[in-house]
Amino acid sequence: MSTVSNQVDAAMPTVRLIGSGLPGMPWQDRPADHPGVVWRYHDNPVIPRNPFPTANSVFNSAVVPYQNGYAGVFRCDDTQRNMQLHAGFSPDGLDWSLDPERIRFVSDDPDIGRWAFGYDPRVCWIDDRYYVTWCNGYHGPTIGMAWTTDFRTFHQRENAFLIFNRNGVLFPRRIGDDYVMLSRPSDNGHTPFGDIFLSRSPDLEHWGRHRFVMGAGSGWQSTKIGAGPVPLETSEGWLLFYHGVLTSCNGFVYSMGAALLDLDEPWNVIYRSAPYLLAPWEPYECVGDVPNVVFPCAALADADSGRIAIYYGCADTVTGLCFCRVDEVIDFLRHHSMV
Amino acid sequence: MSTVSNQVDAAMPTVRLIGSGLPGMPWQDRPADHPGVVWRYHDNPVIPRNPFPTANSVFNSAVVPYQNGYAGVFRCDDTQRNMQLHAGFSPDGLDWSLDPERIRFVSDDPDIGRWAFGYDPRVCWIDDRYYVTWCNGYHGPTIGMAWTTDFRTFHQRENAFLIFNRNGVLFPRRIGDDYVMLSRPSDNGHTPFGDIFLSRSPDLEHWGRHRFVMGAGSGWQSTKIGAGPVPLETSEGWLLFYHGVLTSCNGFVYSMGAALLDLDEPWNVIYRSAPYLLAPWEPYECVGDVPNVVFPCAALADADSGRIAIYYGCADTVTGLCFCRVDEVIDFLRHHSMV
Amino acid sequence: MSTVSNQVDAAMPTVRLIGSGLPGMPWQDRPADHPGVVWRYHDNPVIPRNPFPTANSVFNSAVVPYQNGYAGVFRCDDTQRNMQLHAGFSPDGLDWSLDPERIRFVSDDPDIGRWAFGYDPRVCWIDDRYYVTWCNGYHGPTIGMAWTTDFRTFHQRENAFLIFNRNGVLFPRRIGDDYVMLSRPSDNGHTPFGDIFLSRSPDLEHWGRHRFVMGAGSGWQSTKIGAGPVPLETSEGWLLFYHGVLTSCNGFVYSMGAALLDLDEPWNVIYRSAPYLLAPWEPYECVGDVPNVVFPCAALADADSGRIAIYYGCADTVTGLCFCRVDEVIDFLRHHSMV
Amino acid sequence: MSTVSNQVDAAMPTVRLIGSGLPGMPWQDRPADHPGVVWRYHDNPVIPRNPFPTANSVFNSAVVPYQNGYAGVFRCDDTQRNMQLHAGFSPDGLDWSLDPERIRFVSDDPDIGRWAFGYDPRVCWIDDRYYVTWCNGYHGPTIGMAWTTDFRTFHQRENAFLIFNRNGVLFPRRIGDDYVMLSRPSDNGHTPFGDIFLSRSPDLEHWGRHRFVMGAGSGWQSTKIGAGPVPLETSEGWLLFYHGVLTSCNGFVYSMGAALLDLDEPWNVIYRSAPYLLAPWEPYECVGDVPNVVFPCAALADADSGRIAIYYGCADTVTGLCFCRVDEVIDFLRHHSMV
Amino acid sequence: MSTVSNQVDAAMPTVRLIGSGLPGMPWQDRPADHPGVVWRYHDNPVIPRNPFPTANSVFNSAVVPYQNGYAGVFRCDDTQRNMQLHAGFSPDGLDWSLDPERIRFVSDDPDIGRWAFGYDPRVCWIDDRYYVTWCNGYHGPTIGMAWTTDFRTFHQRENAFLIFNRNGVLFPRRIGDDYVMLSRPSDNGHTPFGDIFLSRSPDLEHWGRHRFVMGAGSGWQSTKIGAGPVPLETSEGWLLFYHGVLTSCNGFVYSMGAALLDLDEPWNVIYRSAPYLLAPWEPYECVGDVPNVVFPCAALADADSGRIAIYYGCADTVTGLCFCRVDEVIDFLRHHSMV
Amino acid sequence: MSTVSNQVDAAMPTVRLIGSGLPGMPWQDRPADHPGVVWRYHDNPVIPRNPFPTANSVFNSAVVPYQNGYAGVFRCDDTQRNMQLHAGFSPDGLDWSLDPERIRFVSDDPDIGRWAFGYDPRVCWIDDRYYVTWCNGYHGPTIGMAWTTDFRTFHQRENAFLIFNRNGVLFPRRIGDDYVMLSRPSDNGHTPFGDIFLSRSPDLEHWGRHRFVMGAGSGWQSTKIGAGPVPLETSEGWLLFYHGVLTSCNGFVYSMGAALLDLDEPWNVIYRSAPYLLAPWEPYECVGDVPNVVFPCAALADADSGRIAIYYGCADTVTGLCFCRVDEVIDFLRHHSMV
Repeated sequence: MSTVSNQVDAAMPTVRLIGSGLPGMPWQDRPADHPGVVWRYHDNPVIPRNPFPTANSVFNSAVVPYQNGYAGVFRCDDTQRNMQLHAGFSPDGLDWSLDPERIRFVSDDPDIGRWAFGYDPRVCWIDDRYYVTWCNGYHGPTIGMAWTTDFRTFHQRENAFLIFNRNGVLFPRRIGDDYVMLSRPSDNGHTPFGDIFLSRSPDLEHWGRHRFVMGAGSGWQSTKIGAGPVPLETSEGWLLFYHGVLTSCNGFVYSMGAALLDLDEPWNVIYRSAPYLLAPWEPYECVGDVPNVVFPCAALADADSGRIAIYYGCADTVTGLCFCRVDEVIDFLRHHSMV
Repeated sequence: MSTVSNQVDAAMPTVRLIGSGLPGMPWQDRPADHPGVVWRYHDNPVIPRNPFPTANSVFNSAVVPYQNGYAGVFRCDDTQRNMQLHAGFSPDGLDWSLDPERIRFVSDDPDIGRWAFGYDPRVCWIDDRYYVTWCNGYHGPTIGMAWTTDFRTFHQRENAFLIFNRNGVLFPRRIGDDYVMLSRPSDNGHTPFGDIFLSRSPDLEHWGRHRFVMGAGSGWQSTKIGAGPVPLETSEGWLLFYHGVLTSCNGFVYSMGAALLDLDEPWNVIYRSAPYLLAPWEPYECVGDVPNVVFPCAALADADSGRIAIYYGCADTVTGLCFCRVDEVIDFLRHHSMV
Repeated sequence: MSTVSNQVDAAMPTVRLIGSGLPGMPWQDRPADHPGVVWRYHDNPVIPRNPFPTANSVFNSAVVPYQNGYAGVFRCDDTQRNMQLHAGFSPDGLDWSLDPERIRFVSDDPDIGRWAFGYDPRVCWIDDRYYVTWCNGYHGPTIGMAWTTDFRTFHQRENAFLIFNRNGVLFPRRIGDDYVMLSRPSDNGHTPFGDIFLSRSPDLEHWGRHRFVMGAGSGWQSTKIGAGPVPLETSEGWLLFYHGVLTSCNGFVYSMGAALLDLDEPWNVIYRSAPYLLAPWEPYECVGDVPNVVFPCAALADADSGRIAIYYGCADTVTGLCFCRVDEVIDFLRHHSMV
Repeated sequence: MSTVSNQVDAAMPTVRLIGSGLPGMPWQDRPADHPGVVWRYHDNPVIPRNPFPTANSVFNSAVVPYQNGYAGVFRCDDTQRNMQLHAGFSPDGLDWSLDPERIRFVSDDPDIGRWAFGYDPRVCWIDDRYYVTWCNGYHGPTIGMAWTTDFRTFHQRENAFLIFNRNGVLFPRRIGDDYVMLSRPSDNGHTPFGDIFLSRSPDLEHWGRHRFVMGAGSGWQSTKIGAGPVPLETSEGWLLFYHGVLTSCNGFVYSMGAALLDLDEPWNVIYRSAPYLLAPWEPYECVGDVPNVVFPCAALADADSGRIAIYYGCADTVTGLCFCRVDEVIDFLRHHSMV
Repeated sequence: MSTVSNQVDAAMPTVRLIGSGLPGMPWQDRPADHPGVVWRYHDNPVIPRNPFPTANSVFNSAVVPYQNGYAGVFRCDDTQRNMQLHAGFSPDGLDWSLDPERIRFVSDDPDIGRWAFGYDPRVCWIDDRYYVTWCNGYHGPTIGMAWTTDFRTFHQRENAFLIFNRNGVLFPRRIGDDYVMLSRPSDNGHTPFGDIFLSRSPDLEHWGRHRFVMGAGSGWQSTKIGAGPVPLETSEGWLLFYHGVLTSCNGFVYSMGAALLDLDEPWNVIYRSAPYLLAPWEPYECVGDVPNVVFPCAALADADSGRIAIYYGCADTVTGLCFCRVDEVIDFLRHHSMV
Repeated sequence: MSTVSNQVDAAMPTVRLIGSGLPGMPWQDRPADHPGVVWRYHDNPVIPRNPFPTANSVFNSAVVPYQNGYAGVFRCDDTQRNMQLHAGFSPDGLDWSLDPERIRFVSDDPDIGRWAFGYDPRVCWIDDRYYVTWCNGYHGPTIGMAWTTDFRTFHQRENAFLIFNRNGVLFPRRIGDDYVMLSRPSDNGHTPFGDIFLSRSPDLEHWGRHRFVMGAGSGWQSTKIGAGPVPLETSEGWLLFYHGVLTSCNGFVYSMGAALLDLDEPWNVIYRSAPYLLAPWEPYECVGDVPNVVFPCAALADADSGRIAIYYGCADTVTGLCFCRVDEVIDFLRHHSMV
């Protein structure tokens, strides 16, 4: 990771970025001595493990701008250690009110609507509503899907795929005529392998024309990879943050990298980070229910300034926040790509 | 398994059965002392392991009636032990001419059309053409799909699902407005688990509304199950032969059972055989490249007589043939169902 | 876990509890903002990892009231990382003098008395003496048994069971005419499964009439469970604290729950906690020789006040102490039972 | 294995042997060119795989002399591949009538009497009745026990041990004041390890004083061992035939050896065969549901002649018979012992 | 595998081949309908499993011409299923006298000379004596080495490598100034991977300059490969027969292929067979102690006629013989190479 | 571990020790209350995880005295999490300048010189130059070797052994006529076993006469062991610090012990520590990329005072320093040896 100059951003970013801003969120510039292009919020974690009495942990959090503030869907493991999804609201993205009751999806089909478990949500605005995707238990893990307009009522739709799948992430608009989703086919355990694929759909219900996007690499991403936040649209391509996993003799280590995907054919990878952008270094990332996990699930962008805020799960226990700038990230990818 | 009376069939079967007959194939009645409702052809195997010089084995064979005789798509492992698909023709279903060149699918999309491996085909007539489904290598095993009208040119389409999947079997007509397929989600190895699911599609390209049909059971089907031949339509429901796997201390044992699925909602199982119908007992089923395998892939039906002929792979090495009658099988399911 | 009111205990507990008190131990009320019914001692750990020079760690500690103070049997892994048992004494349950020499059991039978290893002890007063049970090495792990009256001389008896077994816990009195023991059959490694059974004996030497009590559940107790402290007799039933294990991609996580067993037929479970009562959250529970372990081994009760003090191992490294009240725990079980 | 002289037995055996004879069974002398001390019946298998319509296989058969002929308890896997026990009768030990209905044990305790599965039975006459022991499913495999006097009504008693255990084999009389049983502690799968232990009981219900007898060795018995038939009492000690398992790259291979145990302290092994006595060489032993299995379950002795007949399971599919003479076997053990 | 013309060999082979002939061995031409370039001896197996009383099996046999006939070193598993090496002699290569006593190597160094186990020998004439290499047990498997001039006294030398290694095969002359050996580094179990390496030595005691030669491929050789017989020198290069392993769901399948190595730099592979040359098809190759094994260990060559005879182990139980011609094999490699 | 007196060292050590001193390094005496013979530097870690921008971690560091200060070769995992070797210099052994560019070994042989990965280096002065050994990727892990005189140019030589090997450590002079190396044969993953062997060479290129030195033991060293720093020559024998590994249910734990090897026949072990000398207790040893790792790689000695400084990797993340005295260590070994 080369050092980057630590100048203030007085001007518009070079790379155009689509995003509805970071209303009310206090921005934090890169610390002067920080060598990388992603840096942590100084007061991490932003969400503790037990904001309500039945919570064991809150992490892998899908945050979106909502009504002058923020809303989100959160993975909350309860004190039974069952994996649940909860909704929450915040005026500034830091101070959160989480509903202590789990989301109860509305479904016409009792077979689909029967709740087994849910984890690792993402939220994506398309057309006129928010779509939630998550790892949904239906005789095994697959990609559940629902929509909401108010983060109070969630309408569940068909699961996107057959089991076994995880990390289903929608693109925020149709590409050509298709809805597009990234996912990571897997098995039914602690999958020791995994590549990112792309699938297309005319109706968000039937999915096909599956394409390989990118696979496990070396080093920090040698075991498996999975899409993180909903991709950010930029003038250079889709900016995708993703997680990669390395297997040490003591288990998995989850780190974060980024890739740039072609705007029109997003199964074509333009750049992909050879080094990681963020890895578990801080105590709240190294110690917890699953040691050594950094797991990004949401990226918010401010078009005017090029600022990006990323929410990420820490040690499967708490939620962290980190920052970067679109110009620096894409410049970094250009110079440190493994493609 | 109760004994069944061994009477000749003088009359129409009670259960109506859709099928285009068994032209030219010599029928063999159940041997007088045979206790079960499925019995083997007396001169098995009907296809040896090396009908042409580069063949290591021919098994898991998808046979259909074709032009007053039969055509088929065959799994032929070559002497590199690569898994290939070959076409073949026969006047009577017993004497086969197999093309020594593997099928080369025609595809407009080089990414999809790039051949890695293919195995365990099924062939299904729908509307106006034959569809072939098989386990297709595309960064991992998934369900490949192609169509043909002459068993000489095969047009490849999109893979039906993301990896990892096997045993994709189409229904022979739309149900409601949908094309319907059974499949068995799996992992990328010698999967030690597996249940049958059903998926629907408006266009044979995008698949959704996935439903659990039935899972591994006990005894002979305790490790995993997978759909076998294209289901046969009867007045009682869809008759599905399937394979089940038991894990002994020396590996997998593959046997054959049957299920009856609801005509309109085929994810509803009416009956399902608690005992197996056929298990590896004969030397050509117990000894070969994979000992102890009986693996059905095609079932041909004669509507007038209720006769059914089933092609099945033996020890992953040769192809066997066995017979049954629709009335007896459904009566057996009714009295020995685990549902 | 619902919040509980944090009132002082001015009155007798509603549930009657048998126990000989907590002499000299400073009681600590539940912190005002603590959501659960079990809370930690403010100055944990109460025993450090190396109270004597050859100690690597002291944990999974079996404490009982003894002569106006406390005595106990402790798992002390030495600096060879061999698992040993040591005796110790304390005036107040907090300040401990541990014998730096391991217990050397007296046995008439050299085959039984030959020491291989011992760990995870429990101590139980029955009739007129203290019985020690532990995981004893005899061609594999089983339940060792010995008695003492002075915690200086320990008389070893027959192992209770064949290998492989762990977590053998006696009831503190005969039930009917029988001595009764809980245990957890296992294998010879880091067993990835395990249920609690109950066995009976006329003589503490021959055991039989084994009964299933309860098995692994979901979430925090989905991999295996094992009895913790000697059960506490209450007017509602036997109060059993136990550990449950969840398998993350980075290993086992041990948490603590509780169950209420029928007084006369203790293989009948009245209540069983669906949420955990205590899970590894503190640094001394998350970091150490085995990260993420909370493992209760002894529960002391004060009949008059309903106060309970629980000793538990932390990260297989040090010993922690936590508190609860019998009324609150049983009320919690009543409202959060998975039975 | 040294060659042995092939003389006829004109005289009493040197070693005294307790046994009630082989009424009606045609004896077969050792073939002239046979190098070993155990030889097969010329018309093996003596019981085919499907003597009744619902049988998949009949093997691991526990035969005893009964009323001028023979009775037995048989492992019959049915065509569901569930493991069942069936009773049977024979005038000569070769021609068997098996009850097509499985044994339904009579039990006063519904928890114990609830049938899950049963396999690998042994039958032992003690005092005034026949005791049956088998691998019984009770939340896992353990040693089931029952008694009968007529092989029609079987009275089930308490399971002898906690799970997990297999190959429980009783001695045919008390030793000292104790009933004595051999068994093989195991896990809940296809156990890859296992030693023989001995346990004692005052009442056939409570078991204790467990002793290690002998463990896995090298070569043919390097993975695990288990007691086979009920031990035969001889003037030299208890003659125990047992099975040993070797793990090849293609799975387990089960062979048969023998040991001589001390008459009064049968946990002391006097001799133990370094070579096997019988290994899977014949097609019916090498090919079947589990290839390469020889598994002895019953040994019948004729005191006058020293003749012994051993029933053994073949490839987990059929039942074989083999013969030996007590003098030759013990002489062989004396000269080829690994003790 | 293309068909090859089945003409008689009237003339000298095109490819020059070094070899001392096949004295007394009856040659057998390729059967008229045989499609491949290697064909089996019509009366296989040539050595049964128990040519002497303590033999369980004789296979993986290293045969060389010796004094107008043949001598060899044989893997004989005894009836303890310990792996031993035995010497043997034959006038014609078909009728063998095997010494029933195992080879007892002479060694000056008791640490090296202590016998643990030995298997899979090869014999190679270099300079003035026969060198034997085998898989030797020395705190794990490595390559043992010894020499003999009379196949009665064998002088053991230093092990060639550190553990873990198997399939050490010498070249029959120095190349440059070096002795040269092929081997297959492995682990200490049923290794599921393995490539062929080459090492060099000035003195047959110290080995270095290790080079990768070729690795596992696809299909029949996808799990691991290992050198078979001592390479045959030809005018085109070193002709190496080798084994490859495929992992089916029921275990390993061993087949035989061939490669041509550069004469001067034998770590350079000129050709390598994409298809196998021989695979387990016959009952004595498919059924036995390890089903589905063809394992070549010795190749004898007749320079004048180009005839080659190959000894190979069958199912780890018996020894088979097969034939080929140097011209046909090298022509086959040229046209079916995966290099 | 017995307590040791904490006196100052006023006099020469009793045990003579070869070493070139600790120039400029501030010595730190044992803390008064420290029970063991090895104690940590008070300001550990001495090298942080990211001394230059592309570093993820710096650990397992091979330090030697060099030109009035120190030089070293360091394992630096980069932010791709690839394992690299870097050179560095320090005036005092605490303050380090690491070259941000990895070492690029000079090699005449492109096959050997092609860089795959390198880790866990050791540096050893022999005769007239520094030799570097490390775990080198060459179709698998083996022992790479190179030499340098200035720590700027490194000349790569032949790998010492075939794959799979790790922890190759040279002795600092010839013994007899031989160069001598310790190593740990392994497999190609997170090897769960491993013993230390010794090999000899006339030329540092060809290695032979391999001898077993010592194997995994019990407790802290029950899974595997490996040599640590280059052995220190003393008047009593070679003092070898080594690492041992224990497998907990949550992974490997690496600790440090010591052994004394015979001066002339260093495969003979005189003493070997039954307890560990240092185990992961401090946060920087317990938390990091691989929790619970103490891994010594370099030991520096001062002949006059008997002082020893040991560099060790901490949690595969940072580098620690600890101290001891030769008299105390050898005295400890004498009294706590498992030999």
